[in-house]
Amino acid sequence: ARKGSRSIGVLAPFFTQPSFTERLSGISATLAHSPYELVIYSVDSAARRDGYLNSLAVTRRLDGLIVISLEFEDRLVQRLIERRLETVVIEFYHRDLSSITINDEAGGRIVAEYLVARGHRRFGFVGDTDLPDYAIYPSDRRLQGFRRALEEAGLHLADEQIALAPHGLEQARQQAHRLLDLPEPPTAIFAASDTQALGVLKAARERGVAVPEQLAVVGFDDLEIADYVGLTTVRQHLKESGRIAVELLLSRLADRSRPVQHVELPLTLVRRFTA
Amino acid sequence: ARKGSRSIGVLAPFFTQPSFTERLSGISATLAHSPYELVIYSVDSAARRDGYLNSLAVTRRLDGLIVISLEFEDRLVQRLIERRLETVVIEFYHRDLSSITINDEAGGRIVAEYLVARGHRRFGFVGDTDLPDYAIYPSDRRLQGFRRALEEAGLHLADEQIALAPHGLEQARQQAHRLLDLPEPPTAIFAASDTQALGVLKAARERGVAVPEQLAVVGFDDLEIADYVGLTTVRQHLKESGRIAVELLLSRLADRSRPVQHVELPLTLVRRFTA
Repeated sequence: ARKGSRSIGVLAPFFTQPSFTERLSGISATLAHSPYELVIYSVDSAARRDGYLNSLAVTRRLDGLIVISLEFEDRLVQRLIERRLETVVIEFYHRDLSSITINDEAGGRIVAEYLVARGHRRFGFVGDTDLPDYAIYPSDRRLQGFRRALEEAGLHLADEQIALAPHGLEQARQQAHRLLDLPEPPTAIFAASDTQALGVLKAARERGVAVPEQLAVVGFDDLEIADYVGLTTVRQHLKESGRIAVELLLSRLADRSRPVQHVELPLTLVRRFTA
Repeated sequence: ARKGSRSIGVLAPFFTQPSFTERLSGISATLAHSPYELVIYSVDSAARRDGYLNSLAVTRRLDGLIVISLEFEDRLVQRLIERRLETVVIEFYHRDLSSITINDEAGGRIVAEYLVARGHRRFGFVGDTDLPDYAIYPSDRRLQGFRRALEEAGLHLADEQIALAPHGLEQARQQAHRLLDLPEPPTAIFAASDTQALGVLKAARERGVAVPEQLAVVGFDDLEIADYVGLTTVRQHLKESGRIAVELLLSRLADRSRPVQHVELPLTLVRRFTA
């Protein structure tokens, strides 16, 4: 912290993706009326992640730390605790740190059950690949839950029905075209994020495929834009995750004797117009 | 900087607005393959802005600084220079610092001329109000250029045709309804940002007003979502502004004898389907 000032640090990868921005806006809105400054450290490699965790623990520059979507070794967790840098993690679980998580696999399952109940039998999945080694990617876990729930319903998601690409609207648009080019194209596509769902919707529009009549599309996140375009999606309370992270942090900073808390936020299918 | 590491700092308000996120993504992509870490300091008051500028100049924690959309006193500029903290400013101009700006007034003018040429005679403007005192808001300058160009064409934008609200899609939606409720509603609305233009489009959809037949809508920024929804807008090269800021910073860090540079980025009307 600057002399006489107090600081909360946020350590985050991909901080320009909308889901991160929403978490950050929950963090910054909650800190706005506090005496704490907000400093964000951008992580773009495993070396930087570990470098920051090592150094922030000792410099005493921060009063508290929020780590978003980064997995790190137990050795580093213990170091944060020994050095008394109060830390809350989002999208990561460690017994000894307060955490805020969702059950991504359950999220995939919710989507499968919804689509099966609406009569769909041929599915597609658009998700992430080529992900860097330093961060947590929920895309795979959402796919697992989706796939397992389909199997339990006697339905199969073949490998060619899974279209993975680096994260982004444009990449998802291309993958959706690939799925819609299959000899037996899907009647429902689950995208691992709202951004990717927008890419799928764009591909459908380009081909004149009617949504939801010919193709159902479900996203994940419930960004503000999901409401705007009428996207059916899984809401994961991103802003709230940031807000709770700050509250957990401040409550432990005020009273170190309080126990760590593990908060799992609920997922809800928000039904709009695309599925 | 951490021991042995080198850091570039970004000082920014509203860092969760899409236009800031796009600038940041230009900054982070350009720094990704450099030896520099990226640290973002969030400014939510004039006191924090000045506190950071004062302290970052002396702590030697940073190798370089990028300041986005903050206006600050000459005294603080001179302090940065004396302490040799190399600084680049975006959306602010000071003779002694490298800067990246656009001409917001010219941007408003471009929109007016385009809409007048397409036969519009009754206009509305949706922009920002209740803005905090520590940051730069281009909304007013875009309005000025818009209004002046209309006047030069013999057209008048009355006060009731100007609808201002705190920044946001929802607030813009409400303001658009107010404009469309006027006894003589506008046939064309210029929104000070794409986010606000989305709010205007939503209001039009809610009322069954056909865009662009009954209502033309033009935004400002050219966010990724503008292309997605087919929004006609003024492109301001946000990512590029972040990229150039890093390049200017690194070139001066490599050779302090190079002169400061003032870069004005061009504005282009991108014609899509809403006007």
